[in-house]
Amino acid sequence: MARNIQSLERAAAMLRLLAGGERRLGLSDIASSLGLAKGTAHGILRTLQQEGFVEQDDASGRYQLGAELLRLGTTYLDVHELRARALVWTDDLARSSGESVYLGVLHQQGVLIVHHVFRPDDSRQVLEIGAMQPLHSTALGKVLSAYDPVAHSEALDTDRKAFTDRTVCDSGDFERLLDITRARGYAADVEETWEGVASVAAPIHDRRRMPVGAVGITGAVERLGRDGELRPELIAAVRDCARAVSRDLGAGRF
Amino acid sequence: MARNIQSLERAAAMLRLLAGGERRLGLSDIASSLGLAKGTAHGILRTLQQEGFVEQDDASGRYQLGAELLRLGTTYLDVHELRARALVWTDDLARSSGESVYLGVLHQQGVLIVHHVFRPDDSRQVLEIGAMQPLHSTALGKVLSAYDPVAHSEALDTDRKAFTDRTVCDSGDFERLLDITRARGYAADVEETWEGVASVAAPIHDRRRMPVGAVGITGAVERLGRDGELRPELIAAVRDCARAVSRDLGAGRF
Repeated sequence: MARNIQSLERAAAMLRLLAGGERRLGLSDIASSLGLAKGTAHGILRTLQQEGFVEQDDASGRYQLGAELLRLGTTYLDVHELRARALVWTDDLARSSGESVYLGVLHQQGVLIVHHVFRPDDSRQVLEIGAMQPLHSTALGKVLSAYDPVAHSEALDTDRKAFTDRTVCDSGDFERLLDITRARGYAADVEETWEGVASVAAPIHDRRRMPVGAVGITGAVERLGRDGELRPELIAAVRDCARAVSRDLGAGRF
Repeated sequence: MARNIQSLERAAAMLRLLAGGERRLGLSDIASSLGLAKGTAHGILRTLQQEGFVEQDDASGRYQLGAELLRLGTTYLDVHELRARALVWTDDLARSSGESVYLGVLHQQGVLIVHHVFRPDDSRQVLEIGAMQPLHSTALGKVLSAYDPVAHSEALDTDRKAFTDRTVCDSGDFERLLDITRARGYAADVEETWEGVASVAAPIHDRRRMPVGAVGITGAVERLGRDGELRPELIAAVRDCARAVSRDLGAGRF
């Protein structure tokens, strides 16, 4: 039985460290953060740099993530079957709903956005492919937590931070929310993650009827809601999209 | 002096292997492609999988790139100073030119696209952030080769493939093209990479006047050209954009 390789685990920890917080760190900071001798840390950084995973700023000598990660990350998207199947359907959903569309999958303790269609107006928007969303407060995250047992235990184990007054943090309340999600077949987030922002999401299943992701729309609470309720035609459009992608992935209709 | 770490170099080679060609490979294919014993390859793959850099398909047992690369690659973009400074200017360029805009930097033997603004019409377009373009045939690549000595030697060392009848492959002809690029201050690609597609690009310099990237527009040759020449107002718009970004990076005006 092969054992895990320590230098690789340390290299991965360095990349995670550079991906969070400061993002530009000196050798001493990196070594002390990971409890490594400076020489050990330097050997790993040198190799990561040579392979393009890390870049060193000429002026400050500080390290940051490298371009090869972008190239490889994009290649990951290219082979993503769920994403490929969802491209056309999510375009249609953005057009019919007039809102931005997100496709998310479980990754570590959150939702990784693997596709994002801009709201079809001329406003300036920031692409969020590759960004992470919390499991406990977003519509995408609640759908994954309700349908995927792994996501469920991640959501329960994680620190459920209150982003707004409306975030559901208590584990009992959260479980009840997931029951409602499963009963309805979709999840909502009305200002639980961002003030003024609502989202609706529904689950995507594959040919083995396993939950493989979630698709949803996100937008201003004034546009998504009416008379204190989410507009039913938007909920229907999101669920239609999730069903269409599921069918394209081979899930049966019944 | 720290030495490079073999297991890390092997892990990087595995990720590059999975990023090219087949993209889903079994253990034996990976081991034999890299000249490794199966047990050695398995130990590295297991660790890469645990860290999220590699995923294994349940059904086939084959390996592919993992979601953590997407997350880290996106974080790379977040700390990219050139990209951050260029966001507003490239939006303006897309609007004024009516064409799609690309921002590229040298990475390995090609141009890595670090920002892409869609052509401002309602057509369906594929986001190309993270994609690579060749140095010798694209406008972005020629600009980098003309201004950045490292890109220049990469372009000369690499196999300059003929993508169309118009691709310049001969090293003497290519050098003359770079001389023209430097004399004019911009580069063009008229059907040298893709049939029917033209592009124009100009260099971006930083506060030390070093060439750090290139920005350009790409579109149908019928739209970018007129009477067999590229439209001068488009060339001016691209050069204006490159100058604006350079100034934002601290490059002097003179």
